[in-house]
Amino acid sequence: MIKVGIVGGTGYTGVELLRLLAQHPHVNVAAITSRSEAGVKVCDMYPNLRGHYDTLAFSQPDAQQLGALDAVFFATPHGVAHVLAGELLDKGTRVIDLSADFRLRDADEWSHWYGQPHGAPERLKQAIYGLPEMHRDNIKTAQLIAVPGCYPTAVQLGYLPLLEAGLIDHQQLIADCKSGVTGAGRGAKVGSLLAEASESMKAYGASGHRHLPEISQGLKDIQQSAVGLTFVPHLTPMIRGIHATLYGQLNADPGDLQALFEKRYANEPFVDVMPAGSHPETRSVKGINTCRLAVHRPSGGNTVVVLSVIDNLVKGASGQAIQNLNLMFGFEESTGLTAPALLP
Amino acid sequence: MIKVGIVGGTGYTGVELLRLLAQHPHVNVAAITSRSEAGVKVCDMYPNLRGHYDTLAFSQPDAQQLGALDAVFFATPHGVAHVLAGELLDKGTRVIDLSADFRLRDADEWSHWYGQPHGAPERLKQAIYGLPEMHRDNIKTAQLIAVPGCYPTAVQLGYLPLLEAGLIDHQQLIADCKSGVTGAGRGAKVGSLLAEASESMKAYGASGHRHLPEISQGLKDIQQSAVGLTFVPHLTPMIRGIHATLYGQLNADPGDLQALFEKRYANEPFVDVMPAGSHPETRSVKGINTCRLAVHRPSGGNTVVVLSVIDNLVKGASGQAIQNLNLMFGFEESTGLTAPALLP
Amino acid sequence: MIKVGIVGGTGYTGVELLRLLAQHPHVNVAAITSRSEAGVKVCDMYPNLRGHYDTLAFSQPDAQQLGALDAVFFATPHGVAHVLAGELLDKGTRVIDLSADFRLRDADEWSHWYGQPHGAPERLKQAIYGLPEMHRDNIKTAQLIAVPGCYPTAVQLGYLPLLEAGLIDHQQLIADCKSGVTGAGRGAKVGSLLAEASESMKAYGASGHRHLPEISQGLKDIQQSAVGLTFVPHLTPMIRGIHATLYGQLNADPGDLQALFEKRYANEPFVDVMPAGSHPETRSVKGINTCRLAVHRPSGGNTVVVLSVIDNLVKGASGQAIQNLNLMFGFEESTGLTAPALLP
Amino acid sequence: MIKVGIVGGTGYTGVELLRLLAQHPHVNVAAITSRSEAGVKVCDMYPNLRGHYDTLAFSQPDAQQLGALDAVFFATPHGVAHVLAGELLDKGTRVIDLSADFRLRDADEWSHWYGQPHGAPERLKQAIYGLPEMHRDNIKTAQLIAVPGCYPTAVQLGYLPLLEAGLIDHQQLIADCKSGVTGAGRGAKVGSLLAEASESMKAYGASGHRHLPEISQGLKDIQQSAVGLTFVPHLTPMIRGIHATLYGQLNADPGDLQALFEKRYANEPFVDVMPAGSHPETRSVKGINTCRLAVHRPSGGNTVVVLSVIDNLVKGASGQAIQNLNLMFGFEESTGLTAPALLP
Repeated sequence: MIKVGIVGGTGYTGVELLRLLAQHPHVNVAAITSRSEAGVKVCDMYPNLRGHYDTLAFSQPDAQQLGALDAVFFATPHGVAHVLAGELLDKGTRVIDLSADFRLRDADEWSHWYGQPHGAPERLKQAIYGLPEMHRDNIKTAQLIAVPGCYPTAVQLGYLPLLEAGLIDHQQLIADCKSGVTGAGRGAKVGSLLAEASESMKAYGASGHRHLPEISQGLKDIQQSAVGLTFVPHLTPMIRGIHATLYGQLNADPGDLQALFEKRYANEPFVDVMPAGSHPETRSVKGINTCRLAVHRPSGGNTVVVLSVIDNLVKGASGQAIQNLNLMFGFEESTGLTAPALLP
Repeated sequence: MIKVGIVGGTGYTGVELLRLLAQHPHVNVAAITSRSEAGVKVCDMYPNLRGHYDTLAFSQPDAQQLGALDAVFFATPHGVAHVLAGELLDKGTRVIDLSADFRLRDADEWSHWYGQPHGAPERLKQAIYGLPEMHRDNIKTAQLIAVPGCYPTAVQLGYLPLLEAGLIDHQQLIADCKSGVTGAGRGAKVGSLLAEASESMKAYGASGHRHLPEISQGLKDIQQSAVGLTFVPHLTPMIRGIHATLYGQLNADPGDLQALFEKRYANEPFVDVMPAGSHPETRSVKGINTCRLAVHRPSGGNTVVVLSVIDNLVKGASGQAIQNLNLMFGFEESTGLTAPALLP
Repeated sequence: MIKVGIVGGTGYTGVELLRLLAQHPHVNVAAITSRSEAGVKVCDMYPNLRGHYDTLAFSQPDAQQLGALDAVFFATPHGVAHVLAGELLDKGTRVIDLSADFRLRDADEWSHWYGQPHGAPERLKQAIYGLPEMHRDNIKTAQLIAVPGCYPTAVQLGYLPLLEAGLIDHQQLIADCKSGVTGAGRGAKVGSLLAEASESMKAYGASGHRHLPEISQGLKDIQQSAVGLTFVPHLTPMIRGIHATLYGQLNADPGDLQALFEKRYANEPFVDVMPAGSHPETRSVKGINTCRLAVHRPSGGNTVVVLSVIDNLVKGASGQAIQNLNLMFGFEESTGLTAPALLP
Repeated sequence: MIKVGIVGGTGYTGVELLRLLAQHPHVNVAAITSRSEAGVKVCDMYPNLRGHYDTLAFSQPDAQQLGALDAVFFATPHGVAHVLAGELLDKGTRVIDLSADFRLRDADEWSHWYGQPHGAPERLKQAIYGLPEMHRDNIKTAQLIAVPGCYPTAVQLGYLPLLEAGLIDHQQLIADCKSGVTGAGRGAKVGSLLAEASESMKAYGASGHRHLPEISQGLKDIQQSAVGLTFVPHLTPMIRGIHATLYGQLNADPGDLQALFEKRYANEPFVDVMPAGSHPETRSVKGINTCRLAVHRPSGGNTVVVLSVIDNLVKGASGQAIQNLNLMFGFEESTGLTAPALLP
């Protein structure tokens, strides 16, 4: 049994960590922090946790207390983890950061997209990008994990087999992505009201979104050269789920695309290649850590279409964070992450 | 490890049994039947089951095969279980019927409400009404369980402490209930289409609904005399959940209603009395077997209002069925039913 | 053609006034005010108004400018209209207040429920309660209209025929009401987020809600003596609509209830008594000023159930305000309010 | 005042015609047919029509009766209009067909995609494709209109300015489209149930959809040569609305794209080019005949992204049909189509 903490636990990724860790046999949540809600019991804010965490309450963040834990998750807005993560790492606590703070290896690029100086550029080299399907070995020994963003997870897992095999023009990638509203967080914004966001669909950030450089960096790692990516996210009237529709131009005879995908992910516990001709639904992964994929080649032409679905709060955030933790501490990779999706 | 079967597994209560039993350490689903889908793998119909039941397929119902199992769930439309259940009981298989077939003790009343003769009136005496909060001891030794309906569960658990204590006029009960659309089943009906049922609210069956005699029978058991109940169900634009708003007229000084409820349910693993002043949300029980209750006395007047929420597919059907199974086979009552609700 | 203004136009009742008035042949919207959005064009905030109000912009409220108009709507939070309305009335401008500021005749009761002193108690006698089905003649000559709240409209229209006929026990009224989320306004509150309010149902204010005294006052006007009312509102996962389920205990042979309702509303342009046995859906009034009613007597017993649906933003607010304006200025009562509901 | 009929009026495009025509000052709906519902009043099937069509009832289709009308709308499944339309045309009645029956000019291609022989190939030459923004003059004198499909309308209006200007590679078009569930019609299908389609997102027809040849034909008309188009539709959890996200590869310096779009549509009453940087929402056109567009060039690169939203039942079906009717009969083009969208 290890002891973990959660910094910034009032948002959706925080409560999702609690929900999932309630089922984890080897993890004890010893602390959860929130400046604004210190003193409030987590089950008073999140009634689904009644009976699971009846005494755990939000506390002020305290480096001393957190530094005594085995691992600490950061479920904070960007910019918050930079300094505190370093303090904890210095005390030997392993850090799993769900925010964007350590995802980009280039501090200047981070500053450009997030509009503030990077607070811990010296830590960037140490950070491991926590996508197990690409970096499993490094994750096992990592001290600091940058958990991938939700869109980046869905997009990278979809393009991975094609780019590794060199089958598509890496200058012509188009990722049309649809996300449920929890992707925008639990902040009280007019645009996220049920009365505003339901019964409607819209794109946003068409001219540039913060997940673009993260995706590009990840795809470049696979491709070994810079990629040309157009990324358009859309707000979809549902709570959870990301549907990434990925387009690529074939630059060679691709052979059996279905077999390519199945082989690439044959041993991955959380990537499910659906049968040929499938159209995965986001609800098929509601509440679980699985990414389901399908690959199509319309009319046998030059365009390949990959459909990739995840739950943005699980494989796109808290579930993937726990998958990383399992790898870091030598637990079975799927520990605590085995329940089926809630359907219907 | 016991072996169980599911008869009529293509509907929502069937897939919900599979979802929940995937987490049950002592149960193996050995057979699932469907006349219309025989030969189809369950994970092809329900993609959330991929990775959990990769070989299980629907089969034709076969009394020989089912009779060799320890227990069989019926997740069938009404009228189907009457005969087959008897055959299985004769072979020593215990039967947990999620349909309405054995809920009413009076065969004539059943015929009146369901518009057909009762197919097994001789079994009615044997059937135990599977509401553990009322009939736990009888359930433990039962051979045949009639799992309560969804509305009846929410309503009975809400009125139970008040009627047991003799605090309200049992001739003046009003149950205003709101249900998600899965309560109408998975049948392809125009009225259940997203385009018809979302963004709208309506009552139905205001002049008489099949759950009325079941609720009345249960409340009469508590009260020891016939009750006067008005029951109006409403179709609510959500997938899961029942919210019962229960009204009663106090006929005595009720004392501390909050304490009454807390005491009555202190040892119940699946009834959660919320703090005074609470308004439980259906989402707080999404996917779980808990009933959450709150009791109010507006303006300190003569009317008491109980708010009762359940997930109609779990505590209102498949979860309660498993709770019964656990009791019948001597497992810990909450085995397989311990995950927190999915929120948000 | 008359000139009107809207004070506080950024909320849902403001944009709804603009949407409806765009179809009104005799009304020109000359001014719309908002302190926070002054200078912003209304069609930039509400894209559905593009092509209809391409130049109208929010302005600072200015008593001089507003006082030169024929009528001014207040679509403000409570407490705002008290002073400004008086200034406008003194200049001869007729005021139609959609807020709660002039609904209760008793200033002390207003202060009790709204937690602040009433800012214009001397105006209360002048205010006419704008429910045309009860006060049509007074509305025609009114200078100051208090437009009824959304719940009060649905509840009063449902009970009206029964109370007028003296058929039900006025001490035992129960109004179980369900509202879409626009009832909570356009404020950025966590509880109104799609991620929080969709896929869920909950009661609120079970121990006391601000619409209770307003409904009670209205029912008392009908009954000619104080009523005993239990009112429980519920938040429903939809944008628009109120469904009021009203319970009463018959204290006499009611005769033909259907005929009673049909006769009472035979000449009302905005009350539609549905055929016997109906269950009106809120979507059947989406976007329109109609209240649809159905009356049931379950099992021929002593309880009568009235189902009453309105669009909370139209008959429950802006549409009813325009209906009042039509009466005040001698236009045909349904002018600008004749489009069918949007269904599906 | 002209007299019109509707053949096949029970589906969503039928009721939408009735809803819109209720506001049309020059049109009288003299007949509406339905084999299955003959004798039923339209307001009994669609309660939003109560008070608007209190006597109109569905009747058996009768060529004699329909042939006496000025115009007849077909709101039928494909294959139904072929023969009856011809009979009516022979009687001098003008036909506006909302189905796919006359959209493709090549009868063989029609047969290929719709899986049956074309029933009236000799009429194809006569049919005018009813997209006023391309074919206004021909529509005015047409006897037979093929109203464009919903996806084709959104896609063609988005690509039109770019293809006319020769700015994008017409071999590399990608149309990622999202539709509300009414696009699937009012048929009772499991996949369209609220419990199945809400809280989820999925693609469908990724390998080939019937609207593909229609879009390709239309784009070819603009481009004057065959185009290469990948079209992936998605089912979105909302009732109405299409959001088309269109990608093109610039093959020349495009100059000012915003100005290009604004100029092209400057005189179009039903195309609204949003300000630069906009992201149109489908709800901004809920219930109305407008297509709203925005054009983006992410990071100033070679990809152009057009966002195009319509209401699939209005500009994508019944509203466009009425727009055609207005042109054919010399009415002001926007007659009966002037109400603002319902928002929120």
